[in-house]
Amino acid sequence: MIKPLITLTEAFKRFPGIGQKQAERFAFYILKSSEPDMENLISAIEDAKRRIKACPICCSYSEKTPCEICSDDKRDKHIICIVENYTDLLAIEKTGKYNGLYHVLMGVLSPLDGVHQDNLNIKNLIKRLDGIKEILIATNPTVEGDATAIYLSQILKSRELKITRIAKGIPSGGNIEYADEITLVNALDGRKEI
Amino acid sequence: MIKPLITLTEAFKRFPGIGQKQAERFAFYILKSSEPDMENLISAIEDAKRRIKACPICCSYSEKTPCEICSDDKRDKHIICIVENYTDLLAIEKTGKYNGLYHVLMGVLSPLDGVHQDNLNIKNLIKRLDGIKEILIATNPTVEGDATAIYLSQILKSRELKITRIAKGIPSGGNIEYADEITLVNALDGRKEI
Repeated sequence: MIKPLITLTEAFKRFPGIGQKQAERFAFYILKSSEPDMENLISAIEDAKRRIKACPICCSYSEKTPCEICSDDKRDKHIICIVENYTDLLAIEKTGKYNGLYHVLMGVLSPLDGVHQDNLNIKNLIKRLDGIKEILIATNPTVEGDATAIYLSQILKSRELKITRIAKGIPSGGNIEYADEITLVNALDGRKEI
Repeated sequence: MIKPLITLTEAFKRFPGIGQKQAERFAFYILKSSEPDMENLISAIEDAKRRIKACPICCSYSEKTPCEICSDDKRDKHIICIVENYTDLLAIEKTGKYNGLYHVLMGVLSPLDGVHQDNLNIKNLIKRLDGIKEILIATNPTVEGDATAIYLSQILKSRELKITRIAKGIPSGGNIEYADEITLVNALDGRKEI
């Protein structure tokens, strides 16, 4: 293959979930696409890098400093929802059911992948606990997410805080017959009176 | 989602095989990656667009005009291998078993997708037939590839040319038990004395 194509393919191979074949397809897409399309792509990349920053308080992405949520007076400043990353924040915002603040951990404890507590955005969390009444831990219900939730609850338990964890159970539209055992145990443990 | 992120996600959604979720992951990858990484990506895109051109003779990609293969005196100038696209050319080159010229069709006849003979690089093929003794049609053994091969053989048959088609059969390491019927019929039809 020609040198500039190899360089371009290598650059695309760094994209998440992209292997050699798909990176090559991307490189050929670049070759085939029109000049204005390419200018759009490049300016979209440059724009995003220049205009979007991590909020110094909650670490979510925003064009404002602090972000729209942290600087919104209408939001409940007594509760912080801890999420693994910005996309989880977006998913919760989409429900419209949560009106508190957020804190983006930027990952999850995963010693095997070399992610320890110091690699997560935890120090900033400790700094912003004044006036907070509840911490809602919304890390994913995976091994790493659960371990992170336990770790956070341990370092926070000395403070006068209500610490909560999002509910686990059968997803809406799900099927008890096909649910795995752990999910079913969680659903039974978490049963509520109706 | 924030405006520059939406614009970037839309740009990535135009990449082949990329949907909303994967495009979002790419956009976040861009946000998270370092400035030098982004400069590398952008210069790789610009470099590829600026330095790589389609060869005016065979339409394969190259930094040279005409391309390395068309301008190579050591190659057999009496045979042209017709391929659907540049990646097929690369695959055949990798075998080291073919030493003739190529002609890249830039696609394959597919009326349902709006690809007709005028959309393919066929006119340039007709122009370069002087001195050619054999045309090896190496379009894929799909419905569209076969139809394109038949079409090409019909428009070329009035000329004094040997027209050949790559062999179809059981792939190396394949299993007769699991081969589909059409492949098996092709393998039987194409049997050779040993």
